Amino acid sequence: MDLSVVFYGTGGSVPTARRATACVLIRAGGARVLIDCGEGAQRQMIASTGLVQVDDILITHFHADHYLGLPGLLKTWDLQERRMPLRIAGPRGLRDLFEALRRIFGKIRYPVELIELEPGEALPGEGFEMRAFPVEHRMRANGYAFVEPDRPGRFDAEAARSLGVSDVRDFGRLQRGDPVAVDGGEVRPEQVMGEARRGRKLVVTGDTAPSEMTSVAAHEAELLVHDGTFTEEESARAAETGHSTARDAATLAREAEVKMLALVHISTRYHVRAVIDEAREAFPNAHAVRDFDLVEIPFPERGDPRLIEGGATERRESPSEGAESPSEVLDAREQE
Amino acid sequence: MDLSVVFYGTGGSVPTARRATACVLIRAGGARVLIDCGEGAQRQMIASTGLVQVDDILITHFHADHYLGLPGLLKTWDLQERRMPLRIAGPRGLRDLFEALRRIFGKIRYPVELIELEPGEALPGEGFEMRAFPVEHRMRANGYAFVEPDRPGRFDAEAARSLGVSDVRDFGRLQRGDPVAVDGGEVRPEQVMGEARRGRKLVVTGDTAPSEMTSVAAHEAELLVHDGTFTEEESARAAETGHSTARDAATLAREAEVKMLALVHISTRYHVRAVIDEAREAFPNAHAVRDFDLVEIPFPERGDPRLIEGGATERRESPSEGAESPSEVLDAREQE
Repeated sequence: MDLSVVFYGTGGSVPTARRATACVLIRAGGARVLIDCGEGAQRQMIASTGLVQVDDILITHFHADHYLGLPGLLKTWDLQERRMPLRIAGPRGLRDLFEALRRIFGKIRYPVELIELEPGEALPGEGFEMRAFPVEHRMRANGYAFVEPDRPGRFDAEAARSLGVSDVRDFGRLQRGDPVAVDGGEVRPEQVMGEARRGRKLVVTGDTAPSEMTSVAAHEAELLVHDGTFTEEESARAAETGHSTARDAATLAREAEVKMLALVHISTRYHVRAVIDEAREAFPNAHAVRDFDLVEIPFPERGDPRLIEGGATERRESPSEGAESPSEVLDAREQE
Repeated sequence: MDLSVVFYGTGGSVPTARRATACVLIRAGGARVLIDCGEGAQRQMIASTGLVQVDDILITHFHADHYLGLPGLLKTWDLQERRMPLRIAGPRGLRDLFEALRRIFGKIRYPVELIELEPGEALPGEGFEMRAFPVEHRMRANGYAFVEPDRPGRFDAEAARSLGVSDVRDFGRLQRGDPVAVDGGEVRPEQVMGEARRGRKLVVTGDTAPSEMTSVAAHEAELLVHDGTFTEEESARAAETGHSTARDAATLAREAEVKMLALVHISTRYHVRAVIDEAREAFPNAHAVRDFDLVEIPFPERGDPRLIEGGATERRESPSEGAESPSEVLDAREQE
C-alpha cells in the first residue's frame, strides 16, 4: 500500500504568506484522510494536488485555525456534485460545532457521518485504522495515529519444497497460517514463514504540550508530526499556552524512537533555521516542513521515510484536478 | 485624498490556485473599506499589503464565498490586540448571520457595530459615503457605490485681487461661499471660484445580472467592478443564475459612461483572454483584474484611473505588516 503525507498547512494560528493554518493529508492506498482543516484548505489543495475527495476528516480540537476551512470545502464538494460519503471525526463537541457550521454551508447532498471519538477509540479504514489519543492543549484535544496492522512474514517457497510441500494450494494454506500434511508428517507455518513485518505508524499531534500519551502513541512511528510552536527561550510560554518547543518535540521523537519528525505550527517570530537547529540537537532527522511538502513512507524493510520538498505540487491526483486547467471538475463554480 | 482599490480576491464561488474568492479593498485617504470577505481574505492581505486594520466591511450578499473569510479575519485582529472599532454592513439578515458566526470566532474584544443597509441607505465615511443599491442575484443583494462629494471649484486669487480683494481673510470668506465687501461694492464667490469639481465614484456590484440600478449607480464612475462570470455563449445560464456575461458588464459600463471596468468572479472554465476580448468589443477600457492588482484613482482633473498589475504586493501598508517579517504584529499568533 502506497503511503504518503501531504502538508497543506504548516502555520500557526494566523496564516502567513507562505504558511496556511493546520491541514495534513494522509494518502494510504486509495484512502484519503485529512487531519485538521484550517481556513483556505480547499485552495491549498487546488493549488497543489488538486481538490482531493477525502474519505475522512479528523479534527484535533476546536480552535478556529483547525477547522475554519471545513464550510468552504464541504460546500465546494457539493457544488462539484460529490456523492461519496464523508466521515468527520473529532473530540466530543463535534456535533455541536457542526450544527453551528451548517448555517454557513447550507444543504449538502452527499452523506456526512459525524463521529465523536473518545481517546482510545479508533476509526477503521481500509488496511489501517486512525486511533485517537489524548493530547495536552487548553481544551479537549485528540492526536491521531495512523496504524497499519502487522503484515505476515515472507513465505519461503524453497524451504517449503525442501520439506516436501509441492502443491501450490498447500503454499496458500501455510501462508494463511494452517499446517499442511506431507509424507511422513506435517509442515507448520512457522517453519516456512519469516517473521511478521511491522505495520507502519504515523502520528499527528495537533496543538499540544509534550505528553506521555504522544510518546506512547508514537513509539517507533515512521513519522511524527508534532507541534513546534516555540523555541527553548520561551519554554515557559509554551507550557502556559499548551504548546511545545522544538526541543520538546525532538526529545519526545528521540525517546519514542520515531524515524522522522516533522515540526509544524511554527511561529513566524522565529527564523525557521533556529527551530531546526534546536530540534536537531536532540533528534537529527527533524524537519520544519513547509506547505506542499510531501513525505513518502515505504514499508520499513524497503527504506526510510523520505521528505520531498514541494512534492505535493508535482503529483496531481489527476490531470483534471489540476490547478490551472479549465475543466469539468470546476463546472459548478459559477453557481454561487 | 488618495484613492485606490486593491483586489484581494477575483475568483468565482470556488477559489483557484490564482484567484481567491470575493474581496476588494477601497483605500480612501486614511479610511479602509473592505467589500466582501471570501475565505482566506486575511491571508490574501498578509501575502500582499500586509494585514490591514479596516474600518468597515460591507458584504454584498450571504453566499458563503462572499463572507467565509470573516471569522478568521475577526479572530486574527483580536489575537493581534486590535482596539479600533469595526463596522460591518450588509443586506437585511446580517445580524442573524453574525450570530451564527459568533460561535466560530468566539469573544472579540474590540467594538463591532452591525448595520443592515437597505438599498438607498448609505454608510458615512470621512470625505465619502458608501451607498447601497439593489442588484439582481438569487437572494437579497446590495451593490455598493463609494461616492465622494463634489469639491468646490478652484479659487482664482488673481481675479479676486483685480476685483479689489486684498485681505487674505476675505479670500477665505469667498472660498467658503460668502460675499465680501470691497470699495464701491461687493465681490461674490461665483466671480472668483471655478466650477465645482466632480467627486469620484467607484462601484462594486458583487454577484448580479446586469441591472438598471447598477447603471444608475455607476453613472460616470471612475471604476466599475462588475460580475463577469460568463461569456456570451452561456448568456442563458448567466440569466438563470443571477450573473452577467462579460458583454453584459461591458455594455453597461459603456452606457453608464464609466472610465474603467474591472471584471471579477470570472469562471475558470474560460480563458481569460476570451473574456477580455468579448468585453472590449463593447467597452475598450475593460480589464479582467487578478488578485493583488491595484487601481489608482486620481482626481478626475489629474488623470484617469490606472491599473497596476500586482501592485498590491509592492506597496505594503507598513513594513511591520509585511508578509515575511517576524514582528510584534504577529506576537499573538501562537496563542491558539
